[in-house]
Amino acid sequence: SKSYTITLLPGDGIGPEVISVAKNSLQLVASLEGIKFKFNEMPMGGAALDLTGVPLPEETLLAAKQSDAVLLGAIGGYKWDNNEKHLKPETGLLQLREGLKVFANLRPATVLPQLVDASTLKKEVAEGVDLMVVRELTGGIYFGKPRGFSTNENGEELGFNTEVYATHEIDRIARVAFETARKRRGKLCSVDKANVLEASMLWRKRVTLIASEYPDVELSHMYVDNAAMQLVRNPKQFDTIVTNNIFGDILSDEASMITGSIGMLPSASLGESGPGLFEPIHGSAPDIAGQDKANPLATVLSAAMLLKYGLGEEKAAQRIEAAVLDTLNRGFRTGDIHSAGLNLVGCKEMGEQVLKSI
Amino acid sequence: SKSYTITLLPGDGIGPEVISVAKNSLQLVASLEGIKFKFNEMPMGGAALDLTGVPLPEETLLAAKQSDAVLLGAIGGYKWDNNEKHLKPETGLLQLREGLKVFANLRPATVLPQLVDASTLKKEVAEGVDLMVVRELTGGIYFGKPRGFSTNENGEELGFNTEVYATHEIDRIARVAFETARKRRGKLCSVDKANVLEASMLWRKRVTLIASEYPDVELSHMYVDNAAMQLVRNPKQFDTIVTNNIFGDILSDEASMITGSIGMLPSASLGESGPGLFEPIHGSAPDIAGQDKANPLATVLSAAMLLKYGLGEEKAAQRIEAAVLDTLNRGFRTGDIHSAGLNLVGCKEMGEQVLKSI
Ligand SMILES: CC(C)[C@H](C(=O)O)[C@@H](O)C(=O)O
Ligand SMILES: CC(C)[C@H](C(=O)O)[C@@H](O)C(=O)O
Repeated sequence: SKSYTITLLPGDGIGPEVISVAKNSLQLVASLEGIKFKFNEMPMGGAALDLTGVPLPEETLLAAKQSDAVLLGAIGGYKWDNNEKHLKPETGLLQLREGLKVFANLRPATVLPQLVDASTLKKEVAEGVDLMVVRELTGGIYFGKPRGFSTNENGEELGFNTEVYATHEIDRIARVAFETARKRRGKLCSVDKANVLEASMLWRKRVTLIASEYPDVELSHMYVDNAAMQLVRNPKQFDTIVTNNIFGDILSDEASMITGSIGMLPSASLGESGPGLFEPIHGSAPDIAGQDKANPLATVLSAAMLLKYGLGEEKAAQRIEAAVLDTLNRGFRTGDIHSAGLNLVGCKEMGEQVLKSI
Repeated sequence: SKSYTITLLPGDGIGPEVISVAKNSLQLVASLEGIKFKFNEMPMGGAALDLTGVPLPEETLLAAKQSDAVLLGAIGGYKWDNNEKHLKPETGLLQLREGLKVFANLRPATVLPQLVDASTLKKEVAEGVDLMVVRELTGGIYFGKPRGFSTNENGEELGFNTEVYATHEIDRIARVAFETARKRRGKLCSVDKANVLEASMLWRKRVTLIASEYPDVELSHMYVDNAAMQLVRNPKQFDTIVTNNIFGDILSDEASMITGSIGMLPSASLGESGPGLFEPIHGSAPDIAGQDKANPLATVLSAAMLLKYGLGEEKAAQRIEAAVLDTLNRGFRTGDIHSAGLNLVGCKEMGEQVLKSI
């Protein structure tokens, strides 16, 4: 029987609670599918800072690299907000992405029929939204050099960063995006600011070039400001969106809020080879941490993405996805997606119900 | 009696139609308020490209600089979309902003009670939204150097831009934002990505410092990805937002679409001294150009901002704003904001009705 090592990074806030639920789901589908998991829990983020003084200890990165897939809960919290840059939980996350070379971040934003009312958008605008943002994750202004602080000729302080892309970085994320679109509805929208930025002009040129390898996928281009509008005006027009690191950060969060249920949304970060990184898109929610109130479904669905994209275990992934839908159909809701007449449950109970559905 | 020179830049697409309506409104309030206007119409954008070979002719910039205020229609169109960078209409606009040194871009996003149904957001989320985005307009990644294309050690092409801010650039836009918030509901939210970018860390530091000059304004900070979400989740939480050039480009467009009526939204771009630049936030809409279908009210309201912020003619500005509301109350709507039971009119007729209301 197949055996995999999974690195679990519970992290901060509600991270440990949601990871615990996701781990149980993985364990149950494993036994049903004849898979074996070895779980390796490691410190990361604020928890690692408190324990070891750094947000991503070497042992954690090493364990992650040597495993078959990494499942992360959430990182960050008020406690570390004013830390210097190299001692921020966020810096640990960026180091993890860089260390695992996971350049392709897949962020689905789907409005489930059961949850259409959770959206702040009108029902007719929100229902049926099913889009995927493919965000470049290890390049652009997040990692570009030079960066830092300096002084100009007037003795003034300057803060600066570099937005930079090399052709191979654009080509590989474009290919992931075209492959993704091909498996979906065959439409790819590349988002840039090519009317102003040279980095975006190169982006548009390369994406257009790579398109010739995918004649079955329909490619369009959109400026980022227009994309931010179109997501509000008519999100259903989108199938797959591909964009750079910073635009992807902004637009994927906007898209997730369009669904109204960010407690439901998973993400996958993939590299050329090596383990992928899977995490819910929500944050560590320090205000409700430890209160058994968190919605674990985004992490459970991240575990499903781990099975599908990380391990190629499609059937096990489908079992989890179906169980989540079944749990919703049976009327169970955590506070963030609760509405009148439905069964309000905590994080643990939601986890139990998912196990039941599996 | 006071006399002002106004440079009119009709530009492309629907630009000439909406500028013509706004000019008539200005002329009428002028006669009522005992003001004299000298209008100076100059080519700009694609129109200037066709006429002179450049998107911002020297004569146009000179005329703009020597006038008391500049009113722009819209620029751009399919015809010039594939032009080289220095021959794009957009480049002319950036040169105009730089030439006039208008570093502060004020973009209101207001949901009028008459138009709340135009929003794709649920009525209870959209109604009462009244926010102002103060966008830094002459710095950051739009103008930062170095920028361009080069080749790396592997012989690969690179495209790069520099996001850079100096303290005085942050300080002056922060002051405009605090002054703006002070005249509104006294709440300022500064948006950045200080958990990742050094340019944003300096931004946050300086905005926090300037806050001590405005103890009556309540300052908060938000990451740009969260701001993109919060605008969808609960736009009413915002009063005044201040942010950098590229984040402001994205968020102000998102905020404008939240209102559902971007054909109604004006903008003002102001410098330390010298003429301001006033323009509707919508584009040149080449698909409906010349068909008398455009909504001229965003440009009419831009003329009101010109009177208020550009010339200090508050009373004349109020006359125009009141006339726009009165025209809406009398049931007149262009196609973009039309709904059943209301009076569908074209651009010219809408202009006539505004004159009647004035
Ligand atoms: C925490 C932060 C560094 C991170 C990012 O900006 O990438 C987060 O917003 C995300 O999108 O995963
Ligand atoms: C046309 C373009 C260069 C411009 C910008 O990005 O500033 C536009 O989107 C705007 O917001 O006025």
